[in-house]
Amino acid sequence: MPALNTDLYQLTMAAGYFLADKTEEQATFELTVRRLPPVRNFLVAAGLQQAVEYLHKLQFQAEEIAYLRSLEQFQNAPPAFFEYLAELRFAGDLFAVPEGTPIFPNEPIAIIRAPLIQAQLVETCLLSTFAFQTSIASKAARCVIAAQGRSVVEFGSRRAHSPAAGVLGGRAAYIGGCSGTSNTEAGMRFGIPVFGTAAHSWTMSFPTEEESFRALQHLLGKATVFLIDTYDTLEGARLAARLGPPFWGVRLDSGDLVSVSRQVRRILDDANCREAKIFATNDLNEYRIAELVHSGAPVDGFGVGTELATSADAPALSAVYKLVEIQRGETIQGAAKFSREKSTLPAAKQIYRTPTHDVLAPYRVCDINLKGEPLLRPVMLDGSLLEELPSISATRDHASHAIQALPERLRSLEPVEGYEVKVDPRLVAMAETLRREFQLTGNKV
Amino acid sequence: MPALNTDLYQLTMAAGYFLADKTEEQATFELTVRRLPPVRNFLVAAGLQQAVEYLHKLQFQAEEIAYLRSLEQFQNAPPAFFEYLAELRFAGDLFAVPEGTPIFPNEPIAIIRAPLIQAQLVETCLLSTFAFQTSIASKAARCVIAAQGRSVVEFGSRRAHSPAAGVLGGRAAYIGGCSGTSNTEAGMRFGIPVFGTAAHSWTMSFPTEEESFRALQHLLGKATVFLIDTYDTLEGARLAARLGPPFWGVRLDSGDLVSVSRQVRRILDDANCREAKIFATNDLNEYRIAELVHSGAPVDGFGVGTELATSADAPALSAVYKLVEIQRGETIQGAAKFSREKSTLPAAKQIYRTPTHDVLAPYRVCDINLKGEPLLRPVMLDGSLLEELPSISATRDHASHAIQALPERLRSLEPVEGYEVKVDPRLVAMAETLRREFQLTGNKV
Repeated sequence: MPALNTDLYQLTMAAGYFLADKTEEQATFELTVRRLPPVRNFLVAAGLQQAVEYLHKLQFQAEEIAYLRSLEQFQNAPPAFFEYLAELRFAGDLFAVPEGTPIFPNEPIAIIRAPLIQAQLVETCLLSTFAFQTSIASKAARCVIAAQGRSVVEFGSRRAHSPAAGVLGGRAAYIGGCSGTSNTEAGMRFGIPVFGTAAHSWTMSFPTEEESFRALQHLLGKATVFLIDTYDTLEGARLAARLGPPFWGVRLDSGDLVSVSRQVRRILDDANCREAKIFATNDLNEYRIAELVHSGAPVDGFGVGTELATSADAPALSAVYKLVEIQRGETIQGAAKFSREKSTLPAAKQIYRTPTHDVLAPYRVCDINLKGEPLLRPVMLDGSLLEELPSISATRDHASHAIQALPERLRSLEPVEGYEVKVDPRLVAMAETLRREFQLTGNKV
Repeated sequence: MPALNTDLYQLTMAAGYFLADKTEEQATFELTVRRLPPVRNFLVAAGLQQAVEYLHKLQFQAEEIAYLRSLEQFQNAPPAFFEYLAELRFAGDLFAVPEGTPIFPNEPIAIIRAPLIQAQLVETCLLSTFAFQTSIASKAARCVIAAQGRSVVEFGSRRAHSPAAGVLGGRAAYIGGCSGTSNTEAGMRFGIPVFGTAAHSWTMSFPTEEESFRALQHLLGKATVFLIDTYDTLEGARLAARLGPPFWGVRLDSGDLVSVSRQVRRILDDANCREAKIFATNDLNEYRIAELVHSGAPVDGFGVGTELATSADAPALSAVYKLVEIQRGETIQGAAKFSREKSTLPAAKQIYRTPTHDVLAPYRVCDINLKGEPLLRPVMLDGSLLEELPSISATRDHASHAIQALPERLRSLEPVEGYEVKVDPRLVAMAETLRREFQLTGNKV
């Protein structure tokens, strides 16, 4: 990720901090989601691996610095600022919940503690990295819940917001519980199972459907999936049944999947292809999957594209990155916003998870009365990774267990009573003190 | 873009085509959008530049081929197939409408004519490249229409679907008519104006708001924009007025923007800061911009984030890439799908635009009775770019003029009677012939 991939104001602020001699001040920012989308009962945190890689490699190239120098916004910035940028490496701390952890509004997914300039510069990429993958992992979890044990495969790269988003979406969907992805690069880069056999154009490129099916079977053997709806679905099913094994099954990509899957099942069973599976695609989402499952449609697996790859019903999270602590001389002070709509709580926070609710408490407090499992852990200290992150399959298992451990109502597809996130009284008191100080001194935070 | 960034089935089909000795067969695919989202009256094509770069650089790396060889799906693929992949470069033709051109359902944004394997392999990346940028450019055009001449800046990188999507979103928003973006990498890579000054954390990092404002003014001079709502918006406005020039203006990021902007305008005017501008942000979209404009709120420019960077009300387009012609021995034959929901018309098509409607006709037909401007042009032939693509500012101008040339009703923010896209009778006849042939011969297309 180029270091320049950030909002310009991060860079003008960096120049301003440099000018104001605030280069060494430590600041702490929390990355949280303000509200759950109405159609989500929980979120599944994802993106940490890419965040770590980004922080680890952060470095301005000469041409990036030359570009900045050319902008009118930097005409008053001193030459020493650009030297500072050229030398800049991320030397701060990163605390985060493990990927795959369910999280709720106002809970920090990640905390950055670093020199102010560094902490500020990385805001934009950290937000888009965590928020995007979190939204896809969360959507995937819903599809997987709806499928009740049947396999769900992520098929949406073509509808993703750029080819790069398709790769990361495949990764996040796997963390959220999908069995794999169609995105081959995601398969190679992240060690995720990849799926795919043939499209309608395959069938159409042969003079007859039969020739196309035979050619596919010749290549794929028992991994063959016949896409049977290019011309006439039931004829396609009969053809598959007539060709017989080896094949894994058939794919349906149009029509009323409930009735068509039943008819196709009968055709396959009548031809003694009882082992053959039926895989369904075609604008699926968690609601359609649930309908198919509840109707008893004989569908063995689902490919979900557009809706999953874009989290179409909640395409953005209200993810924010807020200053919660700032160094003033020798002391670290809480920082908060008091504007009516967008107020925040000061201090870096830890999440304590119990079976029924979470508690947000100051990170620094060690209090044996704080029951529950602390979710945030140090990931990087002084710019160095503490230990390798878990494998993606371990992360996927963690997500699956942690989602199962949530109160059952949250695994409904419908909106339910929200999960309780209590705020430790010490945080409230800190906010109050800060607000009073602010009122007393005018703008002093 | 790694060549492996594609759906696995493109690669299994490639292996199958290779096995079936169809490597040299030419195929033509059209990239179209099936339906307009209900909240769009037109789309603005974008993404061609990145599509060309992708096709130009397409090349499998040794590690990608090694990965494919390791997959069970390729165990029957002959070694010669992997050698073929290693040598593969895109050697086909690309026809496309110029970026910035308004387009409608079923109109080809791009046409690929290439050896079947190549044309198939590039489907996934071409779809995500064109569809994503087209959706953002289209959303931007709506915001710009709503702003009635006021400036609209794209501010949404942090909510984009990955950092890479933020950069491309900034580009597409500029094509759609935005004045610029906050994404600095987009500024450097594409020569787009970049905007940004400071965030709330800037203000909060100083002991007082006044110190933070002075420090910003020291850096930015007349480009200074004071963000005045960190603590108390009207106090912030008074402070800005008291500090006085040089500054560009103030930014409002919370509250009732209509009433607050009026109060802030009065404070600025009373202090003789009549030149100072008011810039508004905070969950804006085309509807809120229109409300602000209609209410006469004294807002001079708008920063649009989440809604624009994700095209939140239409986060995916029904973009498809369909086989329309295929070589059979020495002849090129039309290809089409006849399934009830997803039927397609055969043959590569040209779009003829008139002031009131478009006509889709076979690309190959030269008919002086086909009035209107042909929109698609050859961009690459045999893998080579014919001429440099227009500059991004020329593309933005083209979009602006072309949107202005559409029937006025389409520039409404509300859904209106759709634009008419007529189908030339020759296309209908070709589809009919094909369908009849198909019915006569079973599966024969």
